[in-house]
Amino acid sequence: MPRPRLRDLGIVIGDFPAGEGNAITDVPGVTVGHATIKKDSPRVARTGVTVICPRGGKEWLEHVYAGYHSFNGAGEMTGLAWLDEFGTLTAPVGITNTHQVGVVRDAIVEWGHRHGLLETWVAPVVAETFDGGLNDINAFHVTKEHVFEALGAAKGGPVTEGCVGGGTGMNCHGFKSGIGTSSRVAQTPPGRYTVGVLVQANYGQRHHLRINGVPVGKEIPVEDIPAAKSIFSDVAPKENKGRPDGSIIIVVATDAPLLPIQCRRMARHATVGLAKTGGFGFNGSGDIFLAFATGNAITKHSEKNFEIKSFPNEHLSILFEATAEATEEAILNALCAAEDTTGKDGRVARALPTERLHAIMKKYGR
Amino acid sequence: MPRPRLRDLGIVIGDFPAGEGNAITDVPGVTVGHATIKKDSPRVARTGVTVICPRGGKEWLEHVYAGYHSFNGAGEMTGLAWLDEFGTLTAPVGITNTHQVGVVRDAIVEWGHRHGLLETWVAPVVAETFDGGLNDINAFHVTKEHVFEALGAAKGGPVTEGCVGGGTGMNCHGFKSGIGTSSRVAQTPPGRYTVGVLVQANYGQRHHLRINGVPVGKEIPVEDIPAAKSIFSDVAPKENKGRPDGSIIIVVATDAPLLPIQCRRMARHATVGLAKTGGFGFNGSGDIFLAFATGNAITKHSEKNFEIKSFPNEHLSILFEATAEATEEAILNALCAAEDTTGKDGRVARALPTERLHAIMKKYGR
Amino acid sequence: MPRPRLRDLGIVIGDFPAGEGNAITDVPGVTVGHATIKKDSPRVARTGVTVICPRGGKEWLEHVYAGYHSFNGAGEMTGLAWLDEFGTLTAPVGITNTHQVGVVRDAIVEWGHRHGLLETWVAPVVAETFDGGLNDINAFHVTKEHVFEALGAAKGGPVTEGCVGGGTGMNCHGFKSGIGTSSRVAQTPPGRYTVGVLVQANYGQRHHLRINGVPVGKEIPVEDIPAAKSIFSDVAPKENKGRPDGSIIIVVATDAPLLPIQCRRMARHATVGLAKTGGFGFNGSGDIFLAFATGNAITKHSEKNFEIKSFPNEHLSILFEATAEATEEAILNALCAAEDTTGKDGRVARALPTERLHAIMKKYGR
Amino acid sequence: MPRPRLRDLGIVIGDFPAGEGNAITDVPGVTVGHATIKKDSPRVARTGVTVICPRGGKEWLEHVYAGYHSFNGAGEMTGLAWLDEFGTLTAPVGITNTHQVGVVRDAIVEWGHRHGLLETWVAPVVAETFDGGLNDINAFHVTKEHVFEALGAAKGGPVTEGCVGGGTGMNCHGFKSGIGTSSRVAQTPPGRYTVGVLVQANYGQRHHLRINGVPVGKEIPVEDIPAAKSIFSDVAPKENKGRPDGSIIIVVATDAPLLPIQCRRMARHATVGLAKTGGFGFNGSGDIFLAFATGNAITKHSEKNFEIKSFPNEHLSILFEATAEATEEAILNALCAAEDTTGKDGRVARALPTERLHAIMKKYGR
Repeated sequence: MPRPRLRDLGIVIGDFPAGEGNAITDVPGVTVGHATIKKDSPRVARTGVTVICPRGGKEWLEHVYAGYHSFNGAGEMTGLAWLDEFGTLTAPVGITNTHQVGVVRDAIVEWGHRHGLLETWVAPVVAETFDGGLNDINAFHVTKEHVFEALGAAKGGPVTEGCVGGGTGMNCHGFKSGIGTSSRVAQTPPGRYTVGVLVQANYGQRHHLRINGVPVGKEIPVEDIPAAKSIFSDVAPKENKGRPDGSIIIVVATDAPLLPIQCRRMARHATVGLAKTGGFGFNGSGDIFLAFATGNAITKHSEKNFEIKSFPNEHLSILFEATAEATEEAILNALCAAEDTTGKDGRVARALPTERLHAIMKKYGR
Repeated sequence: MPRPRLRDLGIVIGDFPAGEGNAITDVPGVTVGHATIKKDSPRVARTGVTVICPRGGKEWLEHVYAGYHSFNGAGEMTGLAWLDEFGTLTAPVGITNTHQVGVVRDAIVEWGHRHGLLETWVAPVVAETFDGGLNDINAFHVTKEHVFEALGAAKGGPVTEGCVGGGTGMNCHGFKSGIGTSSRVAQTPPGRYTVGVLVQANYGQRHHLRINGVPVGKEIPVEDIPAAKSIFSDVAPKENKGRPDGSIIIVVATDAPLLPIQCRRMARHATVGLAKTGGFGFNGSGDIFLAFATGNAITKHSEKNFEIKSFPNEHLSILFEATAEATEEAILNALCAAEDTTGKDGRVARALPTERLHAIMKKYGR
Repeated sequence: MPRPRLRDLGIVIGDFPAGEGNAITDVPGVTVGHATIKKDSPRVARTGVTVICPRGGKEWLEHVYAGYHSFNGAGEMTGLAWLDEFGTLTAPVGITNTHQVGVVRDAIVEWGHRHGLLETWVAPVVAETFDGGLNDINAFHVTKEHVFEALGAAKGGPVTEGCVGGGTGMNCHGFKSGIGTSSRVAQTPPGRYTVGVLVQANYGQRHHLRINGVPVGKEIPVEDIPAAKSIFSDVAPKENKGRPDGSIIIVVATDAPLLPIQCRRMARHATVGLAKTGGFGFNGSGDIFLAFATGNAITKHSEKNFEIKSFPNEHLSILFEATAEATEEAILNALCAAEDTTGKDGRVARALPTERLHAIMKKYGR
Repeated sequence: MPRPRLRDLGIVIGDFPAGEGNAITDVPGVTVGHATIKKDSPRVARTGVTVICPRGGKEWLEHVYAGYHSFNGAGEMTGLAWLDEFGTLTAPVGITNTHQVGVVRDAIVEWGHRHGLLETWVAPVVAETFDGGLNDINAFHVTKEHVFEALGAAKGGPVTEGCVGGGTGMNCHGFKSGIGTSSRVAQTPPGRYTVGVLVQANYGQRHHLRINGVPVGKEIPVEDIPAAKSIFSDVAPKENKGRPDGSIIIVVATDAPLLPIQCRRMARHATVGLAKTGGFGFNGSGDIFLAFATGNAITKHSEKNFEIKSFPNEHLSILFEATAEATEEAILNALCAAEDTTGKDGRVARALPTERLHAIMKKYGR
C-alpha cells in the first residue's frame, strides 16, 4: 500500500486548488514514465530514469515553448544553449543519476530516430541528481534500453512517486526522497490554467526542512532519526557543513500559452517553493529548473508566419504563485512517498515519519 | 523614540549570530547615507535617496567585486552591462524612487568629478522602487543636491531604518515599509566573515507575509488593518490580484574575498530570504539584487598581474545561508521601523502592529 | 552640401538591397530625432541626444518586442532588467554622452507623463558613448529640454547622419564619426521585411578599419592623417594600446513579427557587422546592441490572451545576414557623413578622406 | 604528405606572431587527442572524437578557470550550468558529432573514475557539430572506447588538422573541413602570453567565405566546385537558404591568469574571428565558444582562502585581438588541411583548392 501523500495527512500548501490528480499530468497531454533499476548484485543498483513528455510523445513534431533557470548550477542539464536560443522543447525530458546524463541524452536521440520522429538532429534536455550514496553510481547501471523502457511507459494519469525512476536513490533533508509531483489550478482572467510540477529532490540538510512554515527538520534532529550517511562521503549531513549536499531538478508544466521568455520567468519563480521548504541552493547543489508551456504548438518548419497566443504578463503573478505552491508540495510529496531504503554498503535512508509529522504540525498551531 | 527592531520583539531569524549593529555597516568600511524628502506643498513629497558606499568613499579608487541577480526585472538597476562584463563596483550605489534613477545616476558621476575621483567615466549602479502611492512621484522631487546630501552624510555604525532616504514612501505586504538592514557573522574555515544586507522593501500582498514561517499576514487581514490604497491604482491590494505591486532592492555586502562570479551567486541566493518572507517576485515587481565583496581591493589600472584572494566555493554555502537570513530579517526590520504615514491624496499607510505580532507568534508556538 | 554616403562612393556592402532611404526609418513607423548641442563658451559643447521612436511615439501604448546583447559591456544601457524580463520597449530609446544617460532617461519618463502617455511608470532604454575628447563632458550640457527637443523633432524619412545628436562629438577608427544608418530589404518566405540599423559609432583604432574587407585603416596611417588625440587621454590611439577606446551603440529595427527571444538573437548577430568593419570589442568599449520588432503590437493590459504572429526561426538567417550588412554600412555611413571637427582644447578630429578611399578600394581590386 | 597550412601559402592573418607550433598546444600544458572513425561497412563512418586537456590530464585536480559564449545556440555544449556557476573546467573537453555528445560525456566521467581522478562527480564540457552528410550518424559509431583512445592519445606539440577526430566528417563554407588550430603570442604589460585556438568548423555558405578580407567564396562559386550535398538534406547549400547549415565549436586557451568572468569575455570575443571568415551565426548553426585560462591552478577543496593572480582588464584588449586572429586562422587551417572526402551515399566533399586561392588573393592585391 502506498504511503499517504501530503494532503492525505491533512497538510495543505497555499491557497490554490490542486488539479484532479495533483500531478504534473494534470496539464493536458503531459505524460511521465519511469524505469527503475534496483538490484543487489553483482553491484548495487538504486537508480533509474524518469522521462516527461510535454505532449505525450507528440512534442517531437509539435514543440512546446520552454525556458530554464539555474538557481545553483552544480549539476548538469543538457540542452541549455538550445533553450536560450530557441526557447523550445522538441523531445522528451529526462532525469537520471549524475554519471549517466549522457546515455539518457543519446538514447532520446536514438528513440527519435527509431520512431521516425527525428528530423536531422535534436538537443534533448536531460538533467540529474546524485544517488551515489545508495547506488553504486560508478557501475553505470543505466543503459539506453532503460531509457526506451521509460519512454515506452510514459502515460498520463497518476504518477508514481518516491523511490522510482530517476528518484530511486535520492535523499532530501536527510530523509529518503525521490520523485514528487503536484499541481494547481489557477483561474486567471484569460482562462483557467493548470500548473504542474515534478521534482527529483535530493538536496538539503535536516534542520532546514520546513513544512508549511513549521520547522519540522529541527523537531526531528538526526540524533533521533539518523540521516543516511552523506551521499558524498561517510560523514553524516550534520558534520557535513559546507560540503556539497545534493541537488533538485524541478520541471514546471502549464497549459497556459506562454512565450519562451515567460517560460524562463516561470522556471525562475520555482525558487520560491524550494526556498520555503528549506532549500538554500547550497554550493554543491545542482538546482536547475525547467518550465514549459503547451498552450502553443510550434512546428519546426513553416514557410509562413504562424499565429500564436500570448498570455498577458500582468496576470502571470497568478501562475507564479501557483508554481511556488506546486513546487513546495511536490517536494513534500517526494518525501511522503519515499520508503525506508537500504542501499550500497548497507547504508540506510529513512523515510519521513508521517505520524510524528502530524504531532509537530499540531504543536505549531496547524 | 524609534520603534523596536525585530530582535527587540524577541523574534530571531535563523541560526547565525547578527553582527554588532545588525546592519550592513557591520561589514567593515561600508557606509550608508540618506537624504529624506518630506513636504506637503506645493506638491506632496514622501521620497528620497539612499546611498551605500562599499568602502566608505574609497570605492572610486579601490573597486570591489560585485554581481547582480534580477529575480523579477520589472524595475531599473543601472550599471548592469558593466557588472556583467567587469564584475566590479567603482562608485557608490544609489536607491531612490522609480522616476528618478537618472538624476541619482548622473549626480553620482558629478560627485565623482567634483571630488577628483572620476577617472574619465563611471557606470554607477542605481536602483529604484515605486513610491507613487504616498509620494507625488510626477513632481520629480529628487535633485542632484539631494544625492550630494546623501553621499555627504554616508557613515558607518547604526543605519536609520524605516521611512528614510529612498524608503520614505514605500510599502510592503500592505504595511508601511522603507529601508531595513541586518547582518550575520559567519565562521567559515577560511575565516570569520560578515554578511550585511540592506533592503528598500516595497513589494508583496498582505496575506502572503510570513515571519519566521508564521502566516502573520493571514492573521492581520486587510479588513482589520487596511492596506494603503494600491500604489498603482485606487484599489486595495486584495482586489488587485495580478496587478503590479511593488518591488524590492536587496544589497548584500560581505568582507569575504569573493570573485565576481561568486558575488553574482550571493546576489542570486538572496532570493531565499525574500521567498521566506512572502515574496513571490510578482509580475510587476522589480526584485533586483546586488552583492559586493570588499575582501579584495581592485585598482582600475595596473601594469602587472595583481594578487587577489579567493574564498573557496565549497564554503560558500555558509555565506549563502547567512545571506538568506540577513535578507529575511532586513525586510522585517524595514516593516518594524516604519511608522504610520499619510501621504499624497490623504492616503494612509499603517505600520505593522508589533504588539499584535507578539500574540500571533505565540499562537503559532513561537 | 552634405558629404556623400558610402553608396554614393560606389561602395556596396553585401548582397541585400537597401531600403528606400537606406535608413532605420525605412522600417515603417520608426522615427528619429536629434538635439545637437554645439557651442564654444562658456564651456565647449560638442554633444547631444538622439532618440528613436519604434512606432513614432505610439510605442508608449503599443509596445514592441525587443532584446539586447552586450558584446562588451564597458558602457551603460538602462532598462536591461526590463528587457530581460519582458522583452518589450514601451518608450522611445535615447542615445547620448556617457555622463548624461540619467537626465535623458528621466526626461523620457517626464515626457510620457506630460503627454499623458505614462501609465504608472516606465523603464526607458538609454545608452551612451563617450565624447569627452571633443566635448567638455564634465560641463553636463544636456538638459531635459534637449531631450524634449529631440523627441519633438522625431520624424520618419531621411535621417541626418554624422555630427548630430548623440553623435556630435564621436570618433571612430581615428576619424570623426557620429550617427550613421542603413537598411536592408529581405525577401523571406513569410514575406518581405526591412531591417534598419542606426549606430552611434565611437570605437576602434585606425589600423583596424576595414571597408568591404579592404584594410583601409592600414592604408591611411595616423602618421598621414592624425587621429584626434585620444578621447581618454592626450596620447594618440597608436600609443594607446590596451586603453579604453570608445564604444558603439547599435540599434536594429525590423517590421518582421519577431518574439522577444528572437529580438535578442538579432541584437547578438549585429556583432558580425561590427567585426567586419574592424571592431574587436576592446576592453573599454561599451558595445551594446538593441533590436526591436514592430511586427506585433503589444498592449500593456489585456484581460484575454492576445494573438500575435511569429516569424519562423528557420528563416531568421536571412534577417541575420541583413542585420550584419546594415550594421556594417551604418558604421561606414557615420564615417562618411562626419566632418572635420575642432573641439575641446582645440583638438581636431579629421573626417574620412573619401577621395583617398576611392583609390585604396581600387588598389585592392574593388 | 600533409597539405600546406594557411601560412605555408603565404597568407598571414593579423598582426600578432603565431606561437611555435601555431597551435592550441603552444599554450603550455594543453594537450589534444583524436580518435578517428572511418569505415565503409556495415555502415559508413566518417566521424570521431577530439579531446582537449587544459593541463594535459592534470586538470582533474588543478582546475582551470573557464567561461563560454553561445553566439548561436543551435547545438549542444554540456556543462554550461557549471561553467556559469563556478567558471571552472575540471575535466578534459570533448568534441564529437551531434548525436553522440552523451557517450563522450559519460565516458569522460568513467575515465576519471577508472584513473582515480574523479572525486564524487564531474560536469564535463562536451560539444558537437553535425556530420550527417558524410557520416551515417544514425549508426551511432562513437563508443566509450573511442573516447578513451582520444584521451590516451592526447599530447602536446603538433596537432593533426583536417579530417581527424571530431572533425572527420565536417564541412565549412562548402568545402571539406574538420579540425583546425592556430595561436598567437601577445606581449602585454603584465607579461608575454599565448592564446591558442582549436576549432571544429562545420558552418557557412560558400559565397560568404572571406580570407583576410578577400571574397574567396564568391570567386569559387559552387557552379565551379560543387559543395557537398547539404549535410541536412539533398539540396546543395545554394538552394538551401535559410535552412540549418552547420556549426562551429571554438575552444580558446591562454596561459594568462584570467578570472572566470574574463574567460567568458574571451569566449565572446572569438565571434570576431568567425565573423571575418564569413560566419553569420545562421539560425541552425551551433556556434558555441569555450575559453579557459591556465594561469591560475584551482584546487577543488581548500580550507583557506587561496591566492590567485588577476590579469588587469585594461590589457585584455590585446588578448581579445589575439583571440580573433587565432580564431580566423584556425578556421582557415581546418579548410587548408582537409582533403577530398567521399562519404555516405557517395557524397563527395571537395577540399579548398589552394593553388586557385593563391591566384584569387593576388587579384585582390594581396
